[in-house]
Amino acid sequence: MLSSIKLRPCLWKQSQILKRSYAWATLPDFTKDRYQVTRGDFSQVTDADIGQFQSILKNSRVLLDDNDTQAYNIDTMKSVRGYSRVVLKPKTTEEVSKILSYCNDRKLAVCPQGGNTGLVGGSVPVFDEVIVSTQLMNRIENIDELSGTLECQSGCILEVLEQAVSEKGLCEHKILFKKNDSNESSLGMPLDLGAKGSCHIGGNLSTNAGGIRLLRYGNLHGSVLGLEAVKADGTILDLMSNFKKDNTGYHLKHLFIGSEGTLGLITKVSISCPTASRAINVAFLGLESYDAVLQTFLAAKRDLGEILSSCEMLDKDALDCSLNAYNLRSPISKYPFYMLIETSGSRMDHDEEKINKFLQYVMEKKLVVDGTVTNEPGKMKAIWEPRETIGTAMFKDCYSFSYDFSVPLKNFYDLVNATKKQISDLPANAFGFGHLGDSNLHLIVQCKEYDSEIHRRVEPFVYEFTSKLKGSISSEHGIGFLKSKYLQFSKKSECIDAMKEIKTFMDPNGILNPYKVLPKNVC
Amino acid sequence: MLSSIKLRPCLWKQSQILKRSYAWATLPDFTKDRYQVTRGDFSQVTDADIGQFQSILKNSRVLLDDNDTQAYNIDTMKSVRGYSRVVLKPKTTEEVSKILSYCNDRKLAVCPQGGNTGLVGGSVPVFDEVIVSTQLMNRIENIDELSGTLECQSGCILEVLEQAVSEKGLCEHKILFKKNDSNESSLGMPLDLGAKGSCHIGGNLSTNAGGIRLLRYGNLHGSVLGLEAVKADGTILDLMSNFKKDNTGYHLKHLFIGSEGTLGLITKVSISCPTASRAINVAFLGLESYDAVLQTFLAAKRDLGEILSSCEMLDKDALDCSLNAYNLRSPISKYPFYMLIETSGSRMDHDEEKINKFLQYVMEKKLVVDGTVTNEPGKMKAIWEPRETIGTAMFKDCYSFSYDFSVPLKNFYDLVNATKKQISDLPANAFGFGHLGDSNLHLIVQCKEYDSEIHRRVEPFVYEFTSKLKGSISSEHGIGFLKSKYLQFSKKSECIDAMKEIKTFMDPNGILNPYKVLPKNVC
Repeated sequence: MLSSIKLRPCLWKQSQILKRSYAWATLPDFTKDRYQVTRGDFSQVTDADIGQFQSILKNSRVLLDDNDTQAYNIDTMKSVRGYSRVVLKPKTTEEVSKILSYCNDRKLAVCPQGGNTGLVGGSVPVFDEVIVSTQLMNRIENIDELSGTLECQSGCILEVLEQAVSEKGLCEHKILFKKNDSNESSLGMPLDLGAKGSCHIGGNLSTNAGGIRLLRYGNLHGSVLGLEAVKADGTILDLMSNFKKDNTGYHLKHLFIGSEGTLGLITKVSISCPTASRAINVAFLGLESYDAVLQTFLAAKRDLGEILSSCEMLDKDALDCSLNAYNLRSPISKYPFYMLIETSGSRMDHDEEKINKFLQYVMEKKLVVDGTVTNEPGKMKAIWEPRETIGTAMFKDCYSFSYDFSVPLKNFYDLVNATKKQISDLPANAFGFGHLGDSNLHLIVQCKEYDSEIHRRVEPFVYEFTSKLKGSISSEHGIGFLKSKYLQFSKKSECIDAMKEIKTFMDPNGILNPYKVLPKNVC
Repeated sequence: MLSSIKLRPCLWKQSQILKRSYAWATLPDFTKDRYQVTRGDFSQVTDADIGQFQSILKNSRVLLDDNDTQAYNIDTMKSVRGYSRVVLKPKTTEEVSKILSYCNDRKLAVCPQGGNTGLVGGSVPVFDEVIVSTQLMNRIENIDELSGTLECQSGCILEVLEQAVSEKGLCEHKILFKKNDSNESSLGMPLDLGAKGSCHIGGNLSTNAGGIRLLRYGNLHGSVLGLEAVKADGTILDLMSNFKKDNTGYHLKHLFIGSEGTLGLITKVSISCPTASRAINVAFLGLESYDAVLQTFLAAKRDLGEILSSCEMLDKDALDCSLNAYNLRSPISKYPFYMLIETSGSRMDHDEEKINKFLQYVMEKKLVVDGTVTNEPGKMKAIWEPRETIGTAMFKDCYSFSYDFSVPLKNFYDLVNATKKQISDLPANAFGFGHLGDSNLHLIVQCKEYDSEIHRRVEPFVYEFTSKLKGSISSEHGIGFLKSKYLQFSKKSECIDAMKEIKTFMDPNGILNPYKVLPKNVC
């Protein structure tokens, strides 16, 4: 523990992070009814089609029973619901190729699905699209500690990969340096997010997932070394590479990163893994104003420099949301703003000195009025827990409209205040939290259950407000189904036209994840 | 200076880094003759076309005199030479749009050119393509220190940008924190390379330039936030963004990063700038074997962690090349291998401790047998100088075939040894250096003047060798003209087909930088 800063001890008790449950108390409306969408001109799945899928995948990997397919038809937010009768579970790239080739010939629409943890309705069918799940494509193919690269299939769960690279790194360092060398180091994943226990790496790439350590390790366009994807017509594109530098022609892999399964289905991934940090510190701070938050962030950039790995902000209601939902306790409370600052470095003594200097500065300047800091694993986990569980807490016994914006830092909290005002006469509450270090605000509007009046009051208001600030209407969640009609608030018409041309070019029949991303999908 | 490690003092004298000179002693052959290329079915520039260009740009920004156009027709390596009669110098995106729209209608081929520092013949015409130079598109539009973003036109010189963000950062921190605060910090550029004094940021993006600090700040696909590009038909695509996270539709900007001006001409750039490091240390080490180099790199990753910003390797002949060309002196010599290791951090005391521990380890283990370390700016510059000047030294009074590979670290130096053997009976010498931390080897074959026998002996040998190692035939230089026929050594046919389709789709008349990148360009 750091001794020179007088901060309260970390009192939170640890609790189990609740896993998402698909045993819905009440089923959401069908997407086609709630959002009044018109089905595209696709074929319908026939028994003959099922027979073909069964011959490609064997019976056990073709799910047809409603009890089995329901969880794949509903998203984690209970905001969208499709009615696909069939879920396919390929194990190999060749099987994916055969499935897509067949569906393309038959003009059957396809919904690729990873861990189904998306927040914009991108990973479940809108109507009866054939669901192709990557759940069984979970083989780790190679981990090379020398260069720090991981190759795996796209259905690997992020947390499983984190564990695997961590163990492999340790093992090889033991060989290279000396058995039981106390200075041994291991590898880490460049990506970390709340849903890591269930999200798939392929889904992370498809949605260009951001998460809590983007500030330190950059985005996936930077850390993905290569990938393999299957196009709508079944063509396998081997864009795998194990090198940070590889300038041999067009960098086509980026077309698949962030296109949410509408241009191809990612089957394999090669990713650059950083050396894991041996020293982690986490501080949780209470502040009186957003201006103080901003100044504290700038001081953190200055004093913590290369070891700053997360800089999160929560307002009071955001913190209370998860404290109440999971009966957690906070060592500091009653402040309008909180910051969670994490450092990740290679030497604990150095990092403690840096964080001490930073805390001394922000407390002397009265930017931070209360806080706690720790490097004990259990306590760090307890500090992260309320932040990481907001994503599920906000759906516990209530409904939440969830937004994800990039906005200039100086206007970061204006959007929350404006939304509070906009719904002040309705039975709803707005709060904000997010990755301050990446200008990424999560805005939540919470109410008892889905309410179309609240929906209309909030949308397109929040998109228009963000557009005026020249912000992005989707920072890290993507466009999916729920935001497709608002794309023009962030992208000019000639860019949307270019996207439509790319879609038509890559997927002429429009079978891949239709009704998603583009305002009027090409189908 | 670090005291605990007994290393030799840094003795190199500083010398002026020689600027490239375009006053050629002897002109290289025309590309069409040396490489026997067939001109595409493009129109030829007529006086009427010149009149149109003059009306778009005013007379002074249309170069027609041979004395003015010669430098734009020859590359820095003297390896290619075109014979374009006209160089256009637009100042605005709209002018670029008008030029491309006109050329597209007239089927006039166009060669976009930045600082003309490319090493694969990508930035000069092969025949008589109209040269569009970004030299006058050099306006810095905005630097936002709060979020660390820079917006500028594509013709800005990298070193000018480095200076600009550094000053702006300091200035705003003075306002935010306190005037003359000794802890003030500034911004830096995420990219640094030997040609920074003349290369353009637009060219850096077009070639996805790597450089000497990619190890620390990642590649341009990660750090470029947005860009504006003009398509072949003159359509302006505004893909600018100031956010690290912006998942609003397809990430089209990546199509232009690394496509070497064949899909569009980049006119504006938005880039994420890191906080500049306040503490820099540079070590130059002598080693007896490549195996020791590899083990020293692993120890550096472990002990220097987050502050390791460069890890370069040079063999003896590479070092001698620049020492001899520019009459420099080295404090250590006679070793077969050298490593240049740089750290960039926020606290000098911490960084010195880390580098001391690292040096102690590698010297105790006898991995490193001699060396020098410094944090004095003049001496650091003197250490970097021989490394940074190899790029020009290798062309001083001789000819060099220059290669740029990514190869697995364990086989990194095998390629140099194999090439030495391959040319052992010819009047030529092979040596290697490069960015070890990125698996990026620069292989040089040096001879008195261009020699087709040496050329035939080396190519395709080096490409075949690299392909067997599953390496990349172009790590950071790109494909350009010189490597286009070897693309198949790194990319499978279906990927090359997909590239050709993208080219046809984006530039149906094939006017943009023809004969480059693709094996048989679409024209």
